[in-house]
Amino acid sequence: MTNAASSSTSFVSYDAECPFPIQNLPYGVFSTTANPSPRPGVAIGDLILDLDALSRSSHFASSPIPADVFQHANLDKLAAREPAEWAAFRSYLTTLLSSNSPLKDAADKDTLFVPRTASSTQMHMPVRIGDYTDFYASFEHAYNAGVLIRGKENAMQPNWRHLPVGYHGRASSVVVSGTPIRRPVGQILDKVGDTQPIWAPCRRLDYELEIGFIYGGAATKLGERLTPTEAREHIFGLVLMNDWSARDIQTWEYVPLGPFLSKNFGTTISPWIVQPAALDPFKTAKYVQEPAVLPYLQDDEGFGFDVPLTLAVRPENAKEYSRIATSNMKHSYWTYAQMIAHHSSTGAPINPSDMMGSGTLSGPGVDGNPNDDALGSLLERSRLGRQPFELNADRKDMTWLRDGDSIKIEGVVKTKDGYSIGFGECEGTVLPAVLPAA
Amino acid sequence: MTNAASSSTSFVSYDAECPFPIQNLPYGVFSTTANPSPRPGVAIGDLILDLDALSRSSHFASSPIPADVFQHANLDKLAAREPAEWAAFRSYLTTLLSSNSPLKDAADKDTLFVPRTASSTQMHMPVRIGDYTDFYASFEHAYNAGVLIRGKENAMQPNWRHLPVGYHGRASSVVVSGTPIRRPVGQILDKVGDTQPIWAPCRRLDYELEIGFIYGGAATKLGERLTPTEAREHIFGLVLMNDWSARDIQTWEYVPLGPFLSKNFGTTISPWIVQPAALDPFKTAKYVQEPAVLPYLQDDEGFGFDVPLTLAVRPENAKEYSRIATSNMKHSYWTYAQMIAHHSSTGAPINPSDMMGSGTLSGPGVDGNPNDDALGSLLERSRLGRQPFELNADRKDMTWLRDGDSIKIEGVVKTKDGYSIGFGECEGTVLPAVLPAA
Repeated sequence: MTNAASSSTSFVSYDAECPFPIQNLPYGVFSTTANPSPRPGVAIGDLILDLDALSRSSHFASSPIPADVFQHANLDKLAAREPAEWAAFRSYLTTLLSSNSPLKDAADKDTLFVPRTASSTQMHMPVRIGDYTDFYASFEHAYNAGVLIRGKENAMQPNWRHLPVGYHGRASSVVVSGTPIRRPVGQILDKVGDTQPIWAPCRRLDYELEIGFIYGGAATKLGERLTPTEAREHIFGLVLMNDWSARDIQTWEYVPLGPFLSKNFGTTISPWIVQPAALDPFKTAKYVQEPAVLPYLQDDEGFGFDVPLTLAVRPENAKEYSRIATSNMKHSYWTYAQMIAHHSSTGAPINPSDMMGSGTLSGPGVDGNPNDDALGSLLERSRLGRQPFELNADRKDMTWLRDGDSIKIEGVVKTKDGYSIGFGECEGTVLPAVLPAA
Repeated sequence: MTNAASSSTSFVSYDAECPFPIQNLPYGVFSTTANPSPRPGVAIGDLILDLDALSRSSHFASSPIPADVFQHANLDKLAAREPAEWAAFRSYLTTLLSSNSPLKDAADKDTLFVPRTASSTQMHMPVRIGDYTDFYASFEHAYNAGVLIRGKENAMQPNWRHLPVGYHGRASSVVVSGTPIRRPVGQILDKVGDTQPIWAPCRRLDYELEIGFIYGGAATKLGERLTPTEAREHIFGLVLMNDWSARDIQTWEYVPLGPFLSKNFGTTISPWIVQPAALDPFKTAKYVQEPAVLPYLQDDEGFGFDVPLTLAVRPENAKEYSRIATSNMKHSYWTYAQMIAHHSSTGAPINPSDMMGSGTLSGPGVDGNPNDDALGSLLERSRLGRQPFELNADRKDMTWLRDGDSIKIEGVVKTKDGYSIGFGECEGTVLPAVLPAA
């Protein structure tokens, strides 16, 4: 199917740079000024195919999934269907949107599409996340952070190569791209060596360039484990993710139970859920895992995706974004399937629409030093704030995020067949902290 | 209102030991063999008043809350109402169930009550928890654990007295009392000093005696903070909680991001949500907090509840439970209101039906040593497994939990007015680990 699909063309026109050709077909939830009810859609070119409207039309007759799945304010019902149904629906959509589809000349065609980028179109959270977990799966990020905090000799913790280190996050503060992020106020130490904290706006506000992946299909029951092979089938889709982090709050609070408020004030995801099938052409070898992992984590068929990810900052009042980093989805030591399998291994149920994050994805170093252009966090890029760097001509001393900074993560890859597959944008702007009135 | 209510009597009869008199009125979700749909109810004596059935009867005419709130599979809709409505509904129920209520002789009375303890009655999760957070709020527990891990000099971490340390947990594995808990299989170190983990059934399975509290009322918005005074109004109710813990998995996995799989394989709560109003007569002074906390955490009106909590173990095939610990709700350094206020302080939304846990509640030591009868975990009771203790005549070498052990937490308090207020039971039995077929 991959080959057939890769040569498909659609009656919807778009150019070779467009991240949403017929080979992509990501799902999202949108509303319009004319119809403010959030509803599922699929992106193609500069349009959104309204799946709610489609499900009420004659064109839905050959759908392998019932209409009520799409007559819902988010994609939860679709995420809960069986993976085989996702594949069948993807095939149905590909046929429906292809160049020779009857839909091309249907009388009701215009009622089924809305403009994707118009100001009259608004994107919403694609699923209602039940539980959200963040991993720490990039070797390079863990190594870079370890060197900065503990030095080269002790950079990697003893457990890191044996299991995908992760922690539970807060689902309630996962927000869709475009949602402003308020600089948090929290307990920090004013000066090194202080023992009495102050309560103040975060001074070390950071981003983390990540991939989020959304579980789907049947829930696992209490006590049920998945193998990596089983787990892989449950990946409903992937999104770009910015795990905003307050480093100074983190440093003070995280002993001994891990990050808490420093990581839960906002996590931004891109609105379009890209199906793994769309990324098939970009499969690449997974990391060599040394020492060998325990049997329950072995994932011989595992792979990565070779998809470049970029992160750029636009200071308030600046016209342009300045790129800080170019990383890649492939910079994950652990496969998504291994992360899910590990997560299930003690038996906590995983439910459809649960989301997991990869952790910051940073690229390999050069000659034993970090590659400054491939670092997914400011913690790494500014060496814990000790090495200001030049963002652009107007900001030659960048360390941490400033109020008004907009962060944009993008992920797009071109094929030799002449099309592009992308995630769209994951964007958020830092609002100034609010302190109580004196 | 408290005084009037404390002298109330009901037409439902129960004795002075019954934890569910008319002064309590906890909410739960139940089903019966005759009607297997889970629905809200309120416990009184040995009966459950079926709130779904009540909402469809003439007796509901004077209810201050609409009927559809109770025609639902759980208490989420009630938790989302305003606190003033909870109070009004409590008052309505008190009148409805009082000795001189017309309900006493109503023709349809028998259709509104079901037996609470009959085998035909089953309890379910009372709310659908969105996000679950566990704190570490007992000074004695933190101190005891700190002494065992780091020694007396460094027992308390620098941040502990400045903020309620907490971490995000997994909502999907919070289960109602009576649900068996499978011993987890996970990565552990076989021997001290090993660097290569094995994958094996947990050998250091523990309980944690806690109180869970459920948030209700309006959700906080992204970026919104609550003061402790505001937060207190949002406590919909309290439950007993057992935070099952795998200490060996925890020790290996928790660096640097905190407990993950070691704490997410099962968290048991009691089925009855006790309203704070029912605990009013048991208010007691809160801990003296030294040094003074930062202004956003100041809770001058804060208090604790003086309610004894017991924990007992019944080994497989044993007839009786053997009590291990008698702790108390009051053994929390931080008030629930402070925990919620801290949680909201960086702006992560808190939604109705979200649950937070107090952390293990252990009582004060004696002469600088732990009080063995007041310790809320086996980690403390067995000194990390180094000091086996006598549970009963058949088990003189207790350290960690064994397969088949049932753990029961209870909380009940008697007043001088001659009635008791209790939570009922929080019970769970350890099932043996399951390894994949060879």
